[in-house]
Amino acid sequence: MDLLFLGTSSGTPTKARNVTALAVLEDTGKGWYLVDCGEATQHQLLYTPLSLHGLRAIFITHVHGDHCYGLPGVLASAGMAGRTEPLEIVAPLGIEEWVRTTLRISQTVLPYELMFHAVETLREWRNRQLRVDATALSHRVPSYGYRFTEARPDPRLDVEKLDREGIPRGPLWGQLAHGFDVQHQGRTLHSDDYLLATRAPRCIVVGGDNDRPELLADACRDAQVLVHEATFTHAVTNDERSLFGHSTAASVAAFAQASDLPNLVLTHFSARYSARPARGLSIENIRAEAAAVYRGRLFLAEDFARFRLGKDGVLLRVETHPTKPR
Amino acid sequence: MDLLFLGTSSGTPTKARNVTALAVLEDTGKGWYLVDCGEATQHQLLYTPLSLHGLRAIFITHVHGDHCYGLPGVLASAGMAGRTEPLEIVAPLGIEEWVRTTLRISQTVLPYELMFHAVETLREWRNRQLRVDATALSHRVPSYGYRFTEARPDPRLDVEKLDREGIPRGPLWGQLAHGFDVQHQGRTLHSDDYLLATRAPRCIVVGGDNDRPELLADACRDAQVLVHEATFTHAVTNDERSLFGHSTAASVAAFAQASDLPNLVLTHFSARYSARPARGLSIENIRAEAAAVYRGRLFLAEDFARFRLGKDGVLLRVETHPTKPR
Repeated sequence: MDLLFLGTSSGTPTKARNVTALAVLEDTGKGWYLVDCGEATQHQLLYTPLSLHGLRAIFITHVHGDHCYGLPGVLASAGMAGRTEPLEIVAPLGIEEWVRTTLRISQTVLPYELMFHAVETLREWRNRQLRVDATALSHRVPSYGYRFTEARPDPRLDVEKLDREGIPRGPLWGQLAHGFDVQHQGRTLHSDDYLLATRAPRCIVVGGDNDRPELLADACRDAQVLVHEATFTHAVTNDERSLFGHSTAASVAAFAQASDLPNLVLTHFSARYSARPARGLSIENIRAEAAAVYRGRLFLAEDFARFRLGKDGVLLRVETHPTKPR
Repeated sequence: MDLLFLGTSSGTPTKARNVTALAVLEDTGKGWYLVDCGEATQHQLLYTPLSLHGLRAIFITHVHGDHCYGLPGVLASAGMAGRTEPLEIVAPLGIEEWVRTTLRISQTVLPYELMFHAVETLREWRNRQLRVDATALSHRVPSYGYRFTEARPDPRLDVEKLDREGIPRGPLWGQLAHGFDVQHQGRTLHSDDYLLATRAPRCIVVGGDNDRPELLADACRDAQVLVHEATFTHAVTNDERSLFGHSTAASVAAFAQASDLPNLVLTHFSARYSARPARGLSIENIRAEAAAVYRGRLFLAEDFARFRLGKDGVLLRVETHPTKPR
């Protein structure tokens, strides 16, 4: 499972960072999932190997523009690229109305179906690769975190069960082992019922804008990675109101440390924290503040940074070429 | 009067060209006007000297997404940058509903007022620098061209009239000469009534998507510059339907030649015409096809290309540094 950051700035784009979007990639290398879709996400995709044909679903954390204004462009360009497969979008109420209004007024007809799921009433979204559930967070508007869990971590056939049920060895077993449901003596055998996980599933939690990281405690219990906003440093915030519903590097790091999270990726930085120090601030202030309290593997996201979560639960940064020129 | 191209691709962005947007700049160097606002126009602005505080008005040619999906981002970022001055938007019906729906659903409150004018019923938009009127074009949806005309080309005081009306020489004359209305003996003297143009006004016509350039004949009569889409070359289009309501380089060039237009800027190119030839096509095909019939000054727009229309009616390309890295 890979993470490929497409935008890591809060509020407005800068020359170095676009507004929020994050791709979660399947191990297969083909399918991927988009979490948030700030303006110009489709432009960022031009500098990645990701294709809009491989996009399996979109998850929106909240309705603020820097997290969703890129949706219509992504949807329209997927259509112009010839996508015909339906596309599922999990999002807060309001996003469906906005997208459908946008398409109607701009007279954009998509050659594929949009299927919306309101995150407010979502129990679980799943396909053959992943299960995704949502956690309500605390922000100026309803905001959600999404947990991506591997659906079948290196499955093996439940041979005992197959023997017990008298299902004969041979092609049937092979199909079940590869995840296909099969017909046998007039009934359907579901692959899922005959596969056993051989290890704990990998699990990545991606938060939306949020000023109470501890709301993700349950979601993070068996997770190896938390991706969370750290818009500000505690050092420069005077009071809670000046946070505008956001977290500081210190508060996220403290939560991750208390939760024994092995890997933490901070993102969604205020433009005042840039690579080159200005007015006494730089992105290194974010890093230092988090590192002071968090002892796990700490990463600060950058646009086009790609990370790989191994089966051992260790997150590593992966080199990517070429990236967008700066 | 300058033109600064912010996007010159049709339909979808490429690495080299963003979707449509064009800045028209006042001679003053401060105020500017935006014609169309494709997605990521605010990102392009980061690489220009233009500030959202200096934006006087926005003109949208038609409702297709590649000409307007960047509007909410520009408006929101202008707000975050502290703009308080009202902003006028001239646009086809539908754009106001879409922008207001977008701001409502994304819970974006602007610290300045939006003032919409429906282009369908616009007689003329004007301020102290410019007069703008619109021409209905022919496309798959209602589309308009905008003509920008200098309001006061190097005005001089109408001394004869002032003397005739007994308005005393001195500070009053100075204020009128600088464009200020003044009070005199209980009545208001309007600067406009005492200024005479000393030369013909500069005039630039910017077309929207359009498959009948000749519809701009009246608008172009006294214009020095036409900016028009040339999405395709005639050579690769099989029939009218394959144009999707767009023009070819040949048809625009023929119109400009028949109209004796001194300067023609082509833009809004299909992605199949790139800088490096692919499948036997490149942007040079556009140039060659237009140059074969047009004898005036011909330019092909590029992102961040800047042009200056002199008082002599000659359009020149102006070097700009730094541009965005490619």
